[in-house]
Amino acid sequence: MAEETQFILNSFAFLFWGVLVMWMCAGFTMLEAGSVKTKNASVVCLKNIGLYAIAGIAFYLVGYSIMHVGVEAGGWFGSFRFGISATSAEQALAQGDAARAAAVVRTGHASMSHWFFQMVFVASTASIVSGTLAERVRLQAFFVFVAVLTAVIYPLVGAWTWGGGWLGELGFRDYAGATVVHSTGGWAALAGVLVVGARRGKFGVDGSVLATPPSNVPAVTLGVFIIWLGFLGFNAGSRLSLSGAADAVAVSLVVINTNLASATGVLAALALSRYVLGRVDLRAGLNGAISGLVSIAAGPELVVPMWACLIGAVGGAICTFGMRLLERLRIDDEVGAIPAHLGGGVWGSLAVCIAAGGHPGVQTAGIGAVAIFVFSTSLGVWWLIDKVMGTRISAHVEALGQDATELGIESFPEFILAPEPELPTDAAAPLRKGH
Amino acid sequence: MAEETQFILNSFAFLFWGVLVMWMCAGFTMLEAGSVKTKNASVVCLKNIGLYAIAGIAFYLVGYSIMHVGVEAGGWFGSFRFGISATSAEQALAQGDAARAAAVVRTGHASMSHWFFQMVFVASTASIVSGTLAERVRLQAFFVFVAVLTAVIYPLVGAWTWGGGWLGELGFRDYAGATVVHSTGGWAALAGVLVVGARRGKFGVDGSVLATPPSNVPAVTLGVFIIWLGFLGFNAGSRLSLSGAADAVAVSLVVINTNLASATGVLAALALSRYVLGRVDLRAGLNGAISGLVSIAAGPELVVPMWACLIGAVGGAICTFGMRLLERLRIDDEVGAIPAHLGGGVWGSLAVCIAAGGHPGVQTAGIGAVAIFVFSTSLGVWWLIDKVMGTRISAHVEALGQDATELGIESFPEFILAPEPELPTDAAAPLRKGH
Amino acid sequence: MAEETQFILNSFAFLFWGVLVMWMCAGFTMLEAGSVKTKNASVVCLKNIGLYAIAGIAFYLVGYSIMHVGVEAGGWFGSFRFGISATSAEQALAQGDAARAAAVVRTGHASMSHWFFQMVFVASTASIVSGTLAERVRLQAFFVFVAVLTAVIYPLVGAWTWGGGWLGELGFRDYAGATVVHSTGGWAALAGVLVVGARRGKFGVDGSVLATPPSNVPAVTLGVFIIWLGFLGFNAGSRLSLSGAADAVAVSLVVINTNLASATGVLAALALSRYVLGRVDLRAGLNGAISGLVSIAAGPELVVPMWACLIGAVGGAICTFGMRLLERLRIDDEVGAIPAHLGGGVWGSLAVCIAAGGHPGVQTAGIGAVAIFVFSTSLGVWWLIDKVMGTRISAHVEALGQDATELGIESFPEFILAPEPELPTDAAAPLRKGH
Repeated sequence: MAEETQFILNSFAFLFWGVLVMWMCAGFTMLEAGSVKTKNASVVCLKNIGLYAIAGIAFYLVGYSIMHVGVEAGGWFGSFRFGISATSAEQALAQGDAARAAAVVRTGHASMSHWFFQMVFVASTASIVSGTLAERVRLQAFFVFVAVLTAVIYPLVGAWTWGGGWLGELGFRDYAGATVVHSTGGWAALAGVLVVGARRGKFGVDGSVLATPPSNVPAVTLGVFIIWLGFLGFNAGSRLSLSGAADAVAVSLVVINTNLASATGVLAALALSRYVLGRVDLRAGLNGAISGLVSIAAGPELVVPMWACLIGAVGGAICTFGMRLLERLRIDDEVGAIPAHLGGGVWGSLAVCIAAGGHPGVQTAGIGAVAIFVFSTSLGVWWLIDKVMGTRISAHVEALGQDATELGIESFPEFILAPEPELPTDAAAPLRKGH
Repeated sequence: MAEETQFILNSFAFLFWGVLVMWMCAGFTMLEAGSVKTKNASVVCLKNIGLYAIAGIAFYLVGYSIMHVGVEAGGWFGSFRFGISATSAEQALAQGDAARAAAVVRTGHASMSHWFFQMVFVASTASIVSGTLAERVRLQAFFVFVAVLTAVIYPLVGAWTWGGGWLGELGFRDYAGATVVHSTGGWAALAGVLVVGARRGKFGVDGSVLATPPSNVPAVTLGVFIIWLGFLGFNAGSRLSLSGAADAVAVSLVVINTNLASATGVLAALALSRYVLGRVDLRAGLNGAISGLVSIAAGPELVVPMWACLIGAVGGAICTFGMRLLERLRIDDEVGAIPAHLGGGVWGSLAVCIAAGGHPGVQTAGIGAVAIFVFSTSLGVWWLIDKVMGTRISAHVEALGQDATELGIESFPEFILAPEPELPTDAAAPLRKGH
Repeated sequence: MAEETQFILNSFAFLFWGVLVMWMCAGFTMLEAGSVKTKNASVVCLKNIGLYAIAGIAFYLVGYSIMHVGVEAGGWFGSFRFGISATSAEQALAQGDAARAAAVVRTGHASMSHWFFQMVFVASTASIVSGTLAERVRLQAFFVFVAVLTAVIYPLVGAWTWGGGWLGELGFRDYAGATVVHSTGGWAALAGVLVVGARRGKFGVDGSVLATPPSNVPAVTLGVFIIWLGFLGFNAGSRLSLSGAADAVAVSLVVINTNLASATGVLAALALSRYVLGRVDLRAGLNGAISGLVSIAAGPELVVPMWACLIGAVGGAICTFGMRLLERLRIDDEVGAIPAHLGGGVWGSLAVCIAAGGHPGVQTAGIGAVAIFVFSTSLGVWWLIDKVMGTRISAHVEALGQDATELGIESFPEFILAPEPELPTDAAAPLRKGH
């Protein structure tokens, strides 16, 4: 087939799959806005539209260059060039200089289509952190962390792996970001929750755990459907190519494996929830879908779909156990993002060894390196933000809700809400640091 | 053009249009969750995420093989092979054996892309049943029925028609599933409603009908917009090809005819609702969109779009009359899925004779055969489930809501709801069997 | 590359990007339904599904022909042929006459794919008007205006520009409709608001302005995410081609510029809102996204993305100032559509001169001509509708809500709403004409 056709198809594929991934940001928003108490839902909306904006700009200004521009083979980071733009040949071609077409076509795809696809990934990483820390992180502090995460931390992990750096050279396998995206987001969220602490009243001094059910279940469900849809693009687009029959075959396999892993994730989580959480738990089922999707992300090109069913089911199970485990550890993860994204991400990165030929040592090294780097860096950044501007809303703001106090609005001003039960007096003591 | 380009485009088209159809599941969820009483909305969410998971797995395990693998010309079913996977040539190619590319390319499209497109169709069929039976079917019973519907019943209908079986051989025309998908779903729903019965209090002993308006109109509307969007993929993807100029022309015609049929469906239903239902009825208008979409599904490749306008308008009208008729027959269809999908499906399968050259006898035979088969089988399956595990929630659960009793949650726990009006005493008697 | 491949890719691109733009209608619906008082949300839903239906039919019957069929070079309008359909060569090809393929392929794309892409644009224009006039315009009056707008007014502006008419000949630059779509919608909305007037009580006789916050913030946010996603298709599809490397490069640039402009629009609007509106204003941030998207629409093919950042940021700022300005002028724009679409549209059409080589005189002439034509025509049409059938709901309907009075339903019938504060007596006087 013609090389120019290949160029168009590769570029278009990045844009198409990228649009689906961009749509995941709306999914995370609905999931989180429906999970929090109504009094915080507007701030959740603002956080999410803001994080998508910040991630796009930060990745434009520095992130992409660090991750993808001139990373030496086996290196640690790329360039710190400010801003990105189309190559000079592309610029000339776009402005009508047809003589440059051949030079452009040889590059395989439009450089900016690749940028778009990479950018929507970084936004997903930030969404994970947002979900975990909802209802007590300060808006400005969160935005500062997002800027650092998307400009520096994530791009460095990306440079090591997809950018051609040392982990990639070692042979670390991460097709669509089980480690690069989801574990990174999960570690950053975990670091954040250690600094910011649990919601007041979540964990009683007597060891009790306050149930904090979603305030808007249809919104949460819509969010999960959006994430499921977007994830098809997340994984399929990670083939990075649509210019040959092998690509078409592989991408089709990726789509069905992704869908099957999510489906078994739902069912496994639902079935287990009865025993682990004491009832058929809708939230466990929904999180199971996400964990299934994450679990298959490291190696979704499997030729035998039954493996995807198994990997997704285990992912759903891990997520359900993880939700329970976090409660035991008194770590307060609002939406269960850590079990779904970090639990699923670690499992998926290991599962590659079983189903898709990954090397156990290398996979473990990659998981460990990203864990150490992202967790420690994030902890430092959260700590610094905490010192400089504070990461935690005041008890007063937490009691009244962020919407009223930080934005001066209510999410549903016309609806009458039930008064919140008062917290027991001892729970009213600041629970900073969570445990 | 190069054969490999054709292969890529065909495969990609299945994936793209399939993603849109997958998105319809979210639409059906929003439509149904917004239609039911708030006290049942969470179970609706669980039902829908669950049905999508089950449908995917059931169709993977057996459904697809029954429908598409080795159906004899004029036969009744395909193979009962367990599980599906890429062809061996595809597997080799995906794993790097470029020598197999030619053999793969000759097959026209990646086999798993076709699977994905077919799978999202079967999920839509299950969604139809879900909508009709909301608010009184037991969750587990519904899931069992979905497994049978998507593993066996739908695949058999599919084998007769699209799989190359006897109805297809006869010349039965069903481009995108007016009969195969929508009538099948409608008949299965009708059988279910006869076994499960009406909601308590829906039909008074004095012949009165209790109004059951949607609890969340914006959610219903969002659902219909999603279904409208998804239906463009539903119909356009049913061309099954995007590898020539004729395909591009046909698919474009399909998209605009589909959109026009839906548009006239809305307006016809709205205009008629004033007379048939006594007011400009939003729900009739929204259902009119769906019925218009279904009506055109049997033959959307029309070269004269005015036909699509007419077919859609009649479809919208049928749906509005059908909503009234079902009430007269004391058949309780929560979301109006039977008028929209079965009414539109039968009409559309006949309209092919007027506008697109279908044979009246063959079309009638196909409509009738599917009606008899799906209705009787579904009735049997529902009856069996009823005997074994029960299909109907108890009066107690129905009064308190499925969310609180089956899941232990509320959809909107912070919002204060108006107390429900008490049912008259005679309506409190079990209305099992509906009439 | 093969000409037939180009034909397929061009046609498919219209359909794909068009589907994204169609999705914007759901976004506008959610944005508007979440912005109005709950008592009017169902009518908003009906208005939006209705406008999409009417726009599609009106544009099919006459609009497209006026805009695109046989516009003379430098002329003012095309033909008034009734209805459109595929070309005769396309019809023959779709029906199996392969001999016509060459003739079809030479036309570059399937004619109906172009129609679809153009149709979804006209629907967006109508959505803008809908948002501004919410909560006091009569449903039927609005539908009549939409029919005129989409059948005649918009198509004439389109004929002048994209159809090849006089403004296009002059060299007026409007890549994706900053003027053609967004300013047109904005002027039509402004004319409407002058005829229909402000909501009762919005502006007190003492100069006070009643705050009218959104009733459902997550719905508004979801709407903005949908619009953001759809706008990628809006701008990218306006390349009108995907058949060469230059197209792929250009479309990729368009996507990232569009995304960056929206991102900076959000941040600029949020940052400014603290000073202009007295607080970090979520609605300003969300509108800033839309205004950023509109601002870049006139020239999104920029090769240096930093320009997009700047143009979007200024667009976001203009929108925030515009929201304040309209309040000062006592013009009641429910959702801020005029600042976002008209403010962003005018700014964007001028910004083309700075960043993309537009001619200041020509751009000004185009902006002015469209302003005069659309505003005066719309004013006349609104005035005429007002005389014939009335455009304004009665004070009684306005107090009780359109849902209960016009549709006999409630959007959330089970939820208990807070009683509305009574309007001061002097505000109860009809505020017809707004000021």
